[in-house]
Amino acid sequence: MLILLDMDGVLADFEQGFLDAWARKHPDQPAVAPEQRRNFYIDDDYPEHCRPLVEKIFTARGFYGGLPPIPGALQGVREMLAAGHDVSICTAPHSFVRYCVPEKYEWVEQHLGSEFVRRVIVTKDKTLVFGDVLVDDRPDIKGYRIPAWRHVIYDQPYNRAVQGLRMDWKGWRGAVESCVN
Amino acid sequence: MLILLDMDGVLADFEQGFLDAWARKHPDQPAVAPEQRRNFYIDDDYPEHCRPLVEKIFTARGFYGGLPPIPGALQGVREMLAAGHDVSICTAPHSFVRYCVPEKYEWVEQHLGSEFVRRVIVTKDKTLVFGDVLVDDRPDIKGYRIPAWRHVIYDQPYNRAVQGLRMDWKGWRGAVESCVN
Repeated sequence: MLILLDMDGVLADFEQGFLDAWARKHPDQPAVAPEQRRNFYIDDDYPEHCRPLVEKIFTARGFYGGLPPIPGALQGVREMLAAGHDVSICTAPHSFVRYCVPEKYEWVEQHLGSEFVRRVIVTKDKTLVFGDVLVDDRPDIKGYRIPAWRHVIYDQPYNRAVQGLRMDWKGWRGAVESCVN
Repeated sequence: MLILLDMDGVLADFEQGFLDAWARKHPDQPAVAPEQRRNFYIDDDYPEHCRPLVEKIFTARGFYGGLPPIPGALQGVREMLAAGHDVSICTAPHSFVRYCVPEKYEWVEQHLGSEFVRRVIVTKDKTLVFGDVLVDDRPDIKGYRIPAWRHVIYDQPYNRAVQGLRMDWKGWRGAVESCVN
């Protein structure tokens, strides 16, 4: 199978990276705990007056490159490859691409190795990318066409209102391999 | 139709950008004239002792971002959109992605506008991208699968040994629209 893996919220721990940066920059401001998150876009879970500060965190230089891996993710990717699957990374950049895009490549090189960089696909529209499965924490993925892949939702508190096949890294095999045609 | 456009050698004038930088950096070294180019990779058209210098030109900061547009390309893209086609940019980054990838985004923003940035797809394997047509100067495009798109070769001196449907910007309409299923 060709498995497409989203980055933020699947491989890279956007939530933890955000919380760390938020506590560092705004120790006086309360944070929304991960379990309390309800919206895919983190800004939408913060009160309106905080949103410019929230956005400043993840548009800052070094944010995307410094995200810690999601626990179990790097091991899970190695298991997928060892099981004979092909793996590509399929990531949609933030509209402010300046730091986000190059740092995503740096992140992959640092955590998955320089050989893995050729597997990166950056696109706003993931329906244009061919694959058997797309593992993505975003619950609604729309685009130009009906996708070739089956969407496996990477389980996160903010996507639990949506029905669908879902996985975390502990259970990737059962979820992903159930999609074999 | 969904038309995928390669960047270097189709939208961005890699050849001219290289010649300008070469003349600036190595005024004492002869350049290979565009009409004399025979290989897709420019290094292969230079004598072996020059290749490290050649590579240094296009891995330098500012090279990709500073490429001039291919004459007629920006007008051609506007014509494609005006004709009702969808257009995405489908570009394979150089393995040294550090400057190349972010500067490709800067180039698109500068020459085609910030609204166009969302149309950029960066991938080493173009066979994974869905489209009706891929306009690309690289004569041999291989990858994971048999592509969905029809390859239209963007005419360049270094790809003329290869048979196939080809176009330049003056003749895009005849070539691209002949691919309608």
